[in-house]
Amino acid sequence: MPDPDDFIVVEQPVPALQRGAVLVENSWFSLDPSMRIRMSGGESSYFAPYRIGAPLDGWAVGTVVESSNPDFTVGDTLHHACGWREHAVLVPDGSDWTSPRPVGVGGAIDARHHLSVLGASGFTAWAGLFKVAQLGPGETVFVSAAAGAVGSLAVQFAKLRGARVIASAGTSEKVRRLTGALGADAAFDYRTRPIGESLRSAAPDGIDVYFDSVGAEHLDAALESLRPGGRVALCGQIENYNHGTGASKGVTRLFSAIEKGLTLRGFLARMYTDDFGEFRSEVSHWFERGMLTVDETVIDGLENAPQGFIGMLGGANIGKTLVRLQAEA
Amino acid sequence: MPDPDDFIVVEQPVPALQRGAVLVENSWFSLDPSMRIRMSGGESSYFAPYRIGAPLDGWAVGTVVESSNPDFTVGDTLHHACGWREHAVLVPDGSDWTSPRPVGVGGAIDARHHLSVLGASGFTAWAGLFKVAQLGPGETVFVSAAAGAVGSLAVQFAKLRGARVIASAGTSEKVRRLTGALGADAAFDYRTRPIGESLRSAAPDGIDVYFDSVGAEHLDAALESLRPGGRVALCGQIENYNHGTGASKGVTRLFSAIEKGLTLRGFLARMYTDDFGEFRSEVSHWFERGMLTVDETVIDGLENAPQGFIGMLGGANIGKTLVRLQAEA
Repeated sequence: MPDPDDFIVVEQPVPALQRGAVLVENSWFSLDPSMRIRMSGGESSYFAPYRIGAPLDGWAVGTVVESSNPDFTVGDTLHHACGWREHAVLVPDGSDWTSPRPVGVGGAIDARHHLSVLGASGFTAWAGLFKVAQLGPGETVFVSAAAGAVGSLAVQFAKLRGARVIASAGTSEKVRRLTGALGADAAFDYRTRPIGESLRSAAPDGIDVYFDSVGAEHLDAALESLRPGGRVALCGQIENYNHGTGASKGVTRLFSAIEKGLTLRGFLARMYTDDFGEFRSEVSHWFERGMLTVDETVIDGLENAPQGFIGMLGGANIGKTLVRLQAEA
Repeated sequence: MPDPDDFIVVEQPVPALQRGAVLVENSWFSLDPSMRIRMSGGESSYFAPYRIGAPLDGWAVGTVVESSNPDFTVGDTLHHACGWREHAVLVPDGSDWTSPRPVGVGGAIDARHHLSVLGASGFTAWAGLFKVAQLGPGETVFVSAAAGAVGSLAVQFAKLRGARVIASAGTSEKVRRLTGALGADAAFDYRTRPIGESLRSAAPDGIDVYFDSVGAEHLDAALESLRPGGRVALCGQIENYNHGTGASKGVTRLFSAIEKGLTLRGFLARMYTDDFGEFRSEVSHWFERGMLTVDETVIDGLENAPQGFIGMLGGANIGKTLVRLQAEA
């Protein structure tokens, strides 16, 4: 588990803008469990490791305050990948999905929603359920870490598409939220009873899909409950992020996948960017009509981001964890 | 590990045939690793457990010696599911793929080949590679337990479809056979060196598909070597068959599936029976033209079947393990 003393806030002068660059004043940035992976050193070529002494980064939204790029105007709201800072110099080149891009605000949509329901969290939930696991109406899905940024949206998206939803979380307060405002058909606290038992009680006839953000015992319980032909969207393994790879908690019930013809498919949202337009269209529609509850834990100020991040890893936060850098307009 | 004293040979009178039944004199029956699963008690509803005191069963071929069924004539060769015995009374009803069915013999094709290359072993290899894992020409596939009944055919089928094949087995003799007569591009003995190291040496650029009959460390090594978009056909977990489920060796590198967008899909051959005709057409074509080497370990006599079965589980046998019940015609 990271410690607040592992982080330091540094002030640096903003450099002069080169041609094509813009200066953005960040209003919000995102804190995500996957950032923990990037703190574990250089093993993975899929998550660029954070370097000691260099600034952290991550999804952010902000306002253009200076522009040397004819395509961007002062006042534009941009979504970009240079969070964990108050100002960022960006060179939008459209090269990949981390490249800065303008986003619309107005009506129900605030800039911060492009970090949650309309951004990476929402897209991860949507792609995992519908593209990776091919969840269909009338099926039963189990969502773990269901009170978190991705899970809380997965629960609601699945309900809106006509599935039955079973959810797990780590406090009784979260469990109440899940069966209350978030609309899960059943929910349980995975800390109070073996997960397999809770899942069997909630879904005595089994489940069709498991949306996995946890790994380990959660995945084993799901493998036992999945029905023939069931699917697992492997989205994260928060259970293992604070261990070295060698100490990763194993999955022991993969034999179930053979007996029942199960499919387990891992994914990162960026593998499904071709589907981003379809996602935005469907989820904006729901959001603008007030059909979605967007839970948020808001941390004020860069200096409080480390504690907010640590709280998120420890399960203290509800919904999307965001750092607010300025008073809202 | 089973012990020969766990088995007993019993003589019983052959009952009179009811209408629709046939009496078959078995010539060969199959010994398969999955039989070990059926000896572990009643946990699985997918593998009917063997009952203590009742005869074992399994794939067999034999000749009709008496018939009360107008569709079957004395002298017909039948494939059926009542092995581990010299005579069997069968009622062919075509209800599922275990129902007795006539098979062709002649030319290169002996009755016993319907238990190996043209039967369940061959079909498992073929369906796993081409239907489950969607192996394509030019791709690299890793096959474990590659000197066994299924593995030795998977190696050859993959080569015939234009893939590069890396194979693992548990003795230097098997490794030589794999790169020799069976045509693997590379092979290694998993007992002499960590599997991950051997696999990286054999496939420094990674693999596209893993055909898994072992589980545990083999699967972890494959997860590390699989390229983005790679697929795993989960066929068996022989590493775990002699442990209780609770003691199953875990898989710890599933996070690789997230980073690389991997798909793991479990299967039993019976889930792909719609494709059996396509399999028979392609594989008979290869076999009748002498393009396949069918390795066999032949055990003579029912009384020696237990020792042959135990030898197979311990890795002593090469290729398909068969019990011969009569001298060949």
